[in-house]
Amino acid sequence: MEYRFSMFANIRVVLVNTSHPGNIGAVARAMKTMCLDQLYLVDPKLFPHADATARASGADDVLASARVCETLEEAIQDCSLVFGASSRSRRIAWPQLVPRACAQRIISEPDHSSIAIIFGREHSGLTNDELEFCHYLVNIPANEEYSSLNIAAAVQVIVYEIMLAKLADKANQTGSLSSERDNKKDEMSKSISESATAEDIEGLFQHMEQALIDMDFLDPDNPRQLMRRLRRLFNRTHLEKTEVNILRGIFTATQRSGQQSN
Amino acid sequence: MEYRFSMFANIRVVLVNTSHPGNIGAVARAMKTMCLDQLYLVDPKLFPHADATARASGADDVLASARVCETLEEAIQDCSLVFGASSRSRRIAWPQLVPRACAQRIISEPDHSSIAIIFGREHSGLTNDELEFCHYLVNIPANEEYSSLNIAAAVQVIVYEIMLAKLADKANQTGSLSSERDNKKDEMSKSISESATAEDIEGLFQHMEQALIDMDFLDPDNPRQLMRRLRRLFNRTHLEKTEVNILRGIFTATQRSGQQSN
Repeated sequence: MEYRFSMFANIRVVLVNTSHPGNIGAVARAMKTMCLDQLYLVDPKLFPHADATARASGADDVLASARVCETLEEAIQDCSLVFGASSRSRRIAWPQLVPRACAQRIISEPDHSSIAIIFGREHSGLTNDELEFCHYLVNIPANEEYSSLNIAAAVQVIVYEIMLAKLADKANQTGSLSSERDNKKDEMSKSISESATAEDIEGLFQHMEQALIDMDFLDPDNPRQLMRRLRRLFNRTHLEKTEVNILRGIFTATQRSGQQSN
Repeated sequence: MEYRFSMFANIRVVLVNTSHPGNIGAVARAMKTMCLDQLYLVDPKLFPHADATARASGADDVLASARVCETLEEAIQDCSLVFGASSRSRRIAWPQLVPRACAQRIISEPDHSSIAIIFGREHSGLTNDELEFCHYLVNIPANEEYSSLNIAAAVQVIVYEIMLAKLADKANQTGSLSSERDNKKDEMSKSISESATAEDIEGLFQHMEQALIDMDFLDPDNPRQLMRRLRRLFNRTHLEKTEVNILRGIFTATQRSGQQSN
C-alpha cells in the first residue's frame, strides 16, 4: 500500500549533538519514507560523513538539504509547537504524549505553523535546559527493562504515526465542503490567535526573568528552579502572540513601577 | 511511559539472507524494546559479527539466543500464522494488511499459537517461493516515491504496533485491575502536583487584578477586556496549587516594589 502526497514542509526533525553520522543518515531515510524532508542538525559530531550517506541509502537529498545549526535555539526559533522525544520519566512532570497523540496534535495544527520534533544525544537524550524549549515530551511506549530505541528507530515510529494521522485526516476530508471548512479554520485561527513562536516565548522568558530580578523576587545567582517552573507553566499553555505581548506589557509595567522607587 | 509484561514468547521475527550484520543487531534491539526476543536467522551472510553486537547495544541476549536456520521452512515449520513484510505490490494479489491490522490479528490469536513475521533481503525482499509460506503480507504505508524502510526500522514499526495492540488488549481485559491502577495513578499525580481549586484560581485572579491596578497597568474603570484575556490564558493551563502560590508571590512582590515609590 503506497501513498503520494506532498512533503510535510512545516514539520522539522531536529537532532541535537548526534554522535554517530550513520544515525543521521538513518534518520534521513526514516523521514523520507514518511514524506518528511526538513532535517536540522544542532552541532553534530561528524557531518557530512560517508557513514551518513551510506545509511541514508537514497535519502541523500534530505541529507544534502539538512541545515546545520550551532544552537538548538537557532534550529527552532520560528517554531510555534515543539516536541521533545524522551524515554526518561523526570521528577518535574512535563506534559507527555505517546506518538499517536503527538501525531494528532500535529495534524490539528494549521498548515502554516512550524513544528519541531527534537531528538537528543544517543546516550543521554536532551538536557533539562533543552527540554525547557518543548511544549510536550513524546514517549514511545516500550519495554520497561529495555526502553531505549535507536534514534533512527524512534524517528521512524514517530514519523510513521504522523503519516498515518495525515492519511486518516485526508480520508475524513471528503469533498469541497470540508476543504472549505478547513480554509475557514485556517483563516480563523490565523486572525484570532496566531501562535507565538519559540523566539517570542524565549523573549518573554528573558524579560520575565529580568523583571523578577528587578523586583527582588528572583535571586540572580540561583534562578533555575523558579524559572523552570514558570517555563513549564507557560509552555503548557501554548501562548498566542497577543498573550505574549500582554505579559510583556505587564513585566514592563512592573519594571517601570519599581524604577520609580529608586 | 513504560510498560512491563513478559516477552511475547510465541512471536518470532525471521530474517532471511540478511546481508549486513549491523542490521541483525539493530533488529534485535528493536525487538527487545517492544518485548520480543525470538529471533530466527535464515542463512545470514555474516553472523555472528562485531557489527551485529555493536548495533544490538544491550540487546545482545536476543542475538545470543538467535536461532540460525538453513532454510525458511525450518524457521517457520511449527508456526500456525505467518506474515511476510513486503513493500512491493505484486502481480499476484495476496492478502495484505497494514501493521496495525496485522497486530490486531496477532493479538486475537490464542497464546499457544506460534506466529512468524518474515523480513526478506535488504535489497530484494522475499522471493515468490518464500511469499507462498505467508498467510498475509504486511505493508507499511510509505511515501510512494521512496517506500523502502531500513529492515530494522520496518521491524521497529511492526513490533511497536504489536506492543500497542497488546497494551490495549490488556487494558480492555483488566476491569477492576485497571481501576485500581487508575486510583494509584490519581494518588500519584495528586502528590506530585495537586491541582488548584476554583477558589484558589479566583483568589489568584482577584490578586492579579489588584496588582495590575496598583502598577497602573489596568484601568480600574474598565478592567474587563484585559482580565478576560488573562483568565482565559491561565484557565487553559490547569494550574497547580504551587503554581498559584508562585504567581501570587510575584504579584505581592510587584505590589511591594510599587509601594516603595509612594
